[in-house]
Amino acid sequence: MDGSDRASETTVDLRSDTLTRPTDSMREAMARAEVGDDVYGEDPTVNALEALAAERLGKAAALFVPSGTMGNLISVLAQCGRGDEMILGADAHIFYYEQGGAAGFGGVQPRTLANRADGTLDLAEVEAAIRADNDHYPVTRLIALENTHNRCGGRVLGVDYMDAAAALAHARGLRLHVDGARIWNAAVALGVSPARLLAGADSVSACLSKGLSAPVGSVVAGDRDFIRRARRLRKALGGGMRQAGVIAAAGIVALEEMVERLAEDHANARLLANGLAALDGVRIDPTAVQTNLVYFELARPGPDAGDFCAALERRGVRMGATSATGVRAVIHRHVHAAAVDRTLAAVAETLRAAAA
Amino acid sequence: MDGSDRASETTVDLRSDTLTRPTDSMREAMARAEVGDDVYGEDPTVNALEALAAERLGKAAALFVPSGTMGNLISVLAQCGRGDEMILGADAHIFYYEQGGAAGFGGVQPRTLANRADGTLDLAEVEAAIRADNDHYPVTRLIALENTHNRCGGRVLGVDYMDAAAALAHARGLRLHVDGARIWNAAVALGVSPARLLAGADSVSACLSKGLSAPVGSVVAGDRDFIRRARRLRKALGGGMRQAGVIAAAGIVALEEMVERLAEDHANARLLANGLAALDGVRIDPTAVQTNLVYFELARPGPDAGDFCAALERRGVRMGATSATGVRAVIHRHVHAAAVDRTLAAVAETLRAAAA
Amino acid sequence: MDGSDRASETTVDLRSDTLTRPTDSMREAMARAEVGDDVYGEDPTVNALEALAAERLGKAAALFVPSGTMGNLISVLAQCGRGDEMILGADAHIFYYEQGGAAGFGGVQPRTLANRADGTLDLAEVEAAIRADNDHYPVTRLIALENTHNRCGGRVLGVDYMDAAAALAHARGLRLHVDGARIWNAAVALGVSPARLLAGADSVSACLSKGLSAPVGSVVAGDRDFIRRARRLRKALGGGMRQAGVIAAAGIVALEEMVERLAEDHANARLLANGLAALDGVRIDPTAVQTNLVYFELARPGPDAGDFCAALERRGVRMGATSATGVRAVIHRHVHAAAVDRTLAAVAETLRAAAA
Amino acid sequence: MDGSDRASETTVDLRSDTLTRPTDSMREAMARAEVGDDVYGEDPTVNALEALAAERLGKAAALFVPSGTMGNLISVLAQCGRGDEMILGADAHIFYYEQGGAAGFGGVQPRTLANRADGTLDLAEVEAAIRADNDHYPVTRLIALENTHNRCGGRVLGVDYMDAAAALAHARGLRLHVDGARIWNAAVALGVSPARLLAGADSVSACLSKGLSAPVGSVVAGDRDFIRRARRLRKALGGGMRQAGVIAAAGIVALEEMVERLAEDHANARLLANGLAALDGVRIDPTAVQTNLVYFELARPGPDAGDFCAALERRGVRMGATSATGVRAVIHRHVHAAAVDRTLAAVAETLRAAAA
Repeated sequence: MDGSDRASETTVDLRSDTLTRPTDSMREAMARAEVGDDVYGEDPTVNALEALAAERLGKAAALFVPSGTMGNLISVLAQCGRGDEMILGADAHIFYYEQGGAAGFGGVQPRTLANRADGTLDLAEVEAAIRADNDHYPVTRLIALENTHNRCGGRVLGVDYMDAAAALAHARGLRLHVDGARIWNAAVALGVSPARLLAGADSVSACLSKGLSAPVGSVVAGDRDFIRRARRLRKALGGGMRQAGVIAAAGIVALEEMVERLAEDHANARLLANGLAALDGVRIDPTAVQTNLVYFELARPGPDAGDFCAALERRGVRMGATSATGVRAVIHRHVHAAAVDRTLAAVAETLRAAAA
Repeated sequence: MDGSDRASETTVDLRSDTLTRPTDSMREAMARAEVGDDVYGEDPTVNALEALAAERLGKAAALFVPSGTMGNLISVLAQCGRGDEMILGADAHIFYYEQGGAAGFGGVQPRTLANRADGTLDLAEVEAAIRADNDHYPVTRLIALENTHNRCGGRVLGVDYMDAAAALAHARGLRLHVDGARIWNAAVALGVSPARLLAGADSVSACLSKGLSAPVGSVVAGDRDFIRRARRLRKALGGGMRQAGVIAAAGIVALEEMVERLAEDHANARLLANGLAALDGVRIDPTAVQTNLVYFELARPGPDAGDFCAALERRGVRMGATSATGVRAVIHRHVHAAAVDRTLAAVAETLRAAAA
Repeated sequence: MDGSDRASETTVDLRSDTLTRPTDSMREAMARAEVGDDVYGEDPTVNALEALAAERLGKAAALFVPSGTMGNLISVLAQCGRGDEMILGADAHIFYYEQGGAAGFGGVQPRTLANRADGTLDLAEVEAAIRADNDHYPVTRLIALENTHNRCGGRVLGVDYMDAAAALAHARGLRLHVDGARIWNAAVALGVSPARLLAGADSVSACLSKGLSAPVGSVVAGDRDFIRRARRLRKALGGGMRQAGVIAAAGIVALEEMVERLAEDHANARLLANGLAALDGVRIDPTAVQTNLVYFELARPGPDAGDFCAALERRGVRMGATSATGVRAVIHRHVHAAAVDRTLAAVAETLRAAAA
Repeated sequence: MDGSDRASETTVDLRSDTLTRPTDSMREAMARAEVGDDVYGEDPTVNALEALAAERLGKAAALFVPSGTMGNLISVLAQCGRGDEMILGADAHIFYYEQGGAAGFGGVQPRTLANRADGTLDLAEVEAAIRADNDHYPVTRLIALENTHNRCGGRVLGVDYMDAAAALAHARGLRLHVDGARIWNAAVALGVSPARLLAGADSVSACLSKGLSAPVGSVVAGDRDFIRRARRLRKALGGGMRQAGVIAAAGIVALEEMVERLAEDHANARLLANGLAALDGVRIDPTAVQTNLVYFELARPGPDAGDFCAALERRGVRMGATSATGVRAVIHRHVHAAAVDRTLAAVAETLRAAAA
């Protein structure tokens, strides 16, 4: 039995897919991983993971990093100098949830545009935001997209859109970075390979934890020159790890065994969304739930989202409030269809109690 | 006769009020200015200017700086550490026209909100943008407003709005900076003192050039501790000048003699706006012209704004294109009512020629 | 049998103690580690490691980080703002081997002083280097020491010296950081606890890999407020890992089982140093070898150090050239007394061959 | 009569040559200067100054900046990216007296080497300090020299040395910056043109104030691409000034009329040094006084340098203490031979009184 199932009996924890615990297969791979000093480039397991990730992401080379935040930070800093500007969504994880590190550590100014409901940026607006050559302006260097887009409900950016964004970037001498924390979800939802989806991207950061369940780590991928600069930045930021094969081993399992099963998460997310849509007091468009993230609103009048989540937790289900009325539920490997049913019942009871 | 009138006979130059040349009175004050080494704090003219500016802006202390850009950069860096966040308009000069220096040199992330047409930010949006205490977020430190607001048509932010913004900032433990490059225009338009208008601001940067016609320099003002930090930052950035009294002398004249006459610029701007509104092929709301900046749109079909400005220049009038259809004309001391008439005639001819 | 012994039969690898592979006990602990999402503070194994490290280092709190470089970077950035200055040795790892990250990402200026042969800084020179309050100067915030000192031959900084440095720092309102990558070696060599040795330090970074053999990770420790800031910086830099308990488990084993055995490494290092001292063509002061690092010089005339290392490797022993004449050999868990004998024989042969 | 002579009757102020006030000729030039908006490149006086400075410094182009600190900061930032390293003297003004701005605002790590007594760096040490290609190291980009060297007693770096440093830099793919705050003094002392002395330099910053007596400003010079980047950096830092011709006019006078007369300052400095050498209680090597800076030591036992300067000021002579025993006296245009005599008498009296 999968060790990670042990805890899920008591509580349904929908706060995040980062909560996924390593599988037994990962534990085993980690225990027997052949290791070396990766700072010397001598860890065979890290090297194998990086080769595998590069191939899956369709890039010349890849680099193992301790987190998605570092993957994004490295990608931005490798492509933008001090005082340069990047264009990205105001809801982008890089801008919203990463403490402003690209500005704080790298002096890169974010030029944010409003994300559309589907997570995309209007490419006409992107084009208009590219700076002309003028001493009053920074130099625009990078466009960053996020796929799937977390704050936009886990929405998937399609192949055509990704290609068009890349074409725009390259036509204007810019580079395209993709925050692909959940790129695997996007690819599975679209039924294409991540490599195809990322064909136009110059760099990508992709998580091995989250839905794929590895305990630690992300990969960045791109051309060899980018990865050379990324490797230097990783060392400088303190992401160079020694016998990192012990965790990279789990990353290999994640890529080999865990990608296809994301379809189950998506199915369970739709199950949850449809169930929620049937409840009084919940507002949700289930057709917008394309992957494993389920965002919904509590109708007014109704409980405050924070109070709702606290009450729900007392019924054994954990979600996160995203605003006074917004709630996020994330489906992952520890949440089976039965847990979705239990969740729906708990939500219904909680709303009923709040209404009473 | 005012020396600065010499050149204005041939061309009406409406590109910017930064084009204003020093008055004869300024030339004279500069020639006889008593000076010392301001890095040692021994330039009496600089000290007098700083005392005068502090009083006019209603703050405990002020500092003379070589430009408005440095005034803003110092103000942001004195109030935000590495990795902190400031909230400001997407059309703010600090964000749009200053090369991203606060991020580039200071590691400060700009959190931009859409400016409303009148140059304000929606304070509810500002409040929503203040970050909670969470390791995923930067720390919000500063709200920055711009008054008058350049890219929003020189619109004036009123006393009540400024007070409300300050109250919000202080209630949330933030500081309020005002980019007051044209704060004098705002005060004159409102009929209040700059000190009153800035009563709630923690820092302000105000230009002595532009409408006030000093050749070089701006001032920043705030409390003594802020100015102490600002002085250190000025030195580090290279804004510490030696016998700066030779230019500060013009700044004193600017504050003493040139503020009230901005009303003439505003009257001429309205004259221009009303004249433009009467022309076919121009779209403008003259009631939105509150100070000396006149933005208008060329109707479609019609000439490209860049082509229009080039054709206009051949008729002896210079303006600047702000987009494919937008044009900016700035009224200043070298543009008298007769020049406005000449401008309107030249615009009309240019549009006629383009239509032909 | 310890899995890490497998590879050491063929080659004696003295390039670094970072090459140490996890012990069987670590592998087992990692395999059965209870985990959670450490970004939520819910990984019990990480929490246990942090508590244990805080206690061993004598500080209120500790934080697990992916590398010593990140530990140092976080420590400097948590204690120095943009434009501040830190005083440290010109041979300090932080300055010499960490890509200048404190300046590059944090805007902290290093003020380097020459290290004395024993790794210390002359405290009178340190005191003289503390900046006065003057707008031409940065503000001195931090003194950083390294113990044991890598580039100074693994020399140990004693308790009295550490106390005196802390007293100086605190008397002048500064903070003291200790790069304790090998603080465990220092404590074992001195026969005191790390906590005692670090009693005056405000922050410390200590490696769990290197001699202690954990595969990945370091800890930083200090007071609660420091650790709070360190935790935020770790997140921003991308050092926040999810189910990090899988590697923290090895760190617990490292602290519980691996510290005392460093005495064996030190004994083997002395064995090696004494043997080298007896060889023609080698210059070394064996009394300066206090821990596990053995630096020696090749006498002139004699082979270039790079050529020497290449020739030595063909005889099954790997060392690193540190200059045209300098060589570093590092003793660690995979190097037993027999390997030292084999090393001495290989060195002697290599020198003989070079002389021939 | 030169207006700047008025104040010098009462006090002999030897604290710095930055105290020099503009000449009558400068005042006149400033009063009649033709100006325009330099941010648009339309100030004819600034353009003329930049052309003149480029020619005098032997470079393709030059840029007017408000201070020497900004000149150096721009030069470093235009040639070093985030995280790069520059090699310079531990006594370099850039490192010692500019608040660490290159690190603080630009993320550039200073690699300091001990200056020799004559202000030079040992080029063998410079070469040894150039970093190899290694992920532990920053990339070395720049060597910075200072000529004359302030903290090394105003010593002149000769043509051969400057050429050799440039040759080393270029052989290793680095660039050479010269902090030429007092390059005019160096050239006059050597009897060569600044252009010859700087023939190998890629960038230079040279002051128009100090000995040359302009009230405000410095110039940076280099190739066109460097100046293009410098101009952008100047704007971003806030050094872009509007009708800057009013101060540039004085800079033109400084270059045309004030360079040759530095020989007088040097003669007066030697007079002072020789006089000091004859006094009991003063230690100075007069042969080391090559330009206008006179550093000397107070013999022990003897007064503290701070106390000495305070007592001296009561006798009408101002100097600056550089340490507990060191004093700096700077000769400039307001200090004539008679003032040197008066200074020597005051020093002798002060020492006598202290001894009593």
